[in-house]
Amino acid sequence: MSRPAHRRPEYHKINKDLFVLTYGALVAQLCKDYEKDEDVNKYLDKMGYGIGTRLVEDFLARSCVRRCHSYSEIIDIIAQVAFKMYLGITPSVTCNNSSRTEFSLILDKNPLVEFVEELPAGRSSLCYCNLLCGIIRGALEMVHLAADVTFLQDTLKGDRVTEIGITFLKKLDEKKYRRKK
Amino acid sequence: MSRPAHRRPEYHKINKDLFVLTYGALVAQLCKDYEKDEDVNKYLDKMGYGIGTRLVEDFLARSCVRRCHSYSEIIDIIAQVAFKMYLGITPSVTCNNSSRTEFSLILDKNPLVEFVEELPAGRSSLCYCNLLCGIIRGALEMVHLAADVTFLQDTLKGDRVTEIGITFLKKLDEKKYRRKK
Repeated sequence: MSRPAHRRPEYHKINKDLFVLTYGALVAQLCKDYEKDEDVNKYLDKMGYGIGTRLVEDFLARSCVRRCHSYSEIIDIIAQVAFKMYLGITPSVTCNNSSRTEFSLILDKNPLVEFVEELPAGRSSLCYCNLLCGIIRGALEMVHLAADVTFLQDTLKGDRVTEIGITFLKKLDEKKYRRKK
Repeated sequence: MSRPAHRRPEYHKINKDLFVLTYGALVAQLCKDYEKDEDVNKYLDKMGYGIGTRLVEDFLARSCVRRCHSYSEIIDIIAQVAFKMYLGITPSVTCNNSSRTEFSLILDKNPLVEFVEELPAGRSSLCYCNLLCGIIRGALEMVHLAADVTFLQDTLKGDRVTEIGITFLKKLDEKKYRRKK
């Protein structure tokens, strides 16, 4: 993909609580709109996908990351650079299979749920933070990497940590990608 | 109002673009849900009100602002401390009447609309950033100040600046407020 010709002159951080509460309002609205948790999850993922496709250009421009040569390198960039830049946290990474295509990001603390004590009543299958999965999926697809991104553990569901699983499926349009670099 | 007994140990900032794009997704969802712009505006204000009532405790704890003795002082705190803390900008302030109860916050640049080129088709009465009005209204009400908060100018509607009008109505429960201080 092409990188933006000009970086935006200013780079602002904003207060996390404002984001976290606004995100909560978004999830609450979707819970009003869709009766089934699966539909809310799907919609959050879809919204995140759109956000990820827009964030990635800015991320590449600002982070100045070099081309990665393995999925492991890509996961490390997501955990150490992207999460740090966007959410102020650095998840730990595990690799879950021998062919090194399945990984997990482990979040000891999830800033998005700081104001959430528990899932809303009757919403036990809600993936509250599914926007994050969509963002990762959308951003990866923009650099020609198809991936499944889902929550494997969630503190809101009683797990000790939050775990996002990322499974790389295949490289998309590798030739095209190389030509553009 | 009482202040929280414990401040949260960590204070994080997050990336503004993530917030701005998520906010855009929220507005888009409300535009899907409500046909009339007025209803979207009302709902954004209502959501913002809820957020404001929750943000204010943290704001008071972190900003360590002293009790204000005039509406002018309060507006200055909103512009110089709250906007700076939460959105990274400092609006300028004007007073609009001789009894010093009507003020405007003038935003030369509005971070919330950074990714928005124009209002969606058929949505010319949408107050895209109406969440902000609700947040201010909610936060003020939690410190016993009733106010009308509305957009008077909006760059998305062709105005040169964005202007938020704040009109103080009366002090609520002043005795109660004093007793608690």
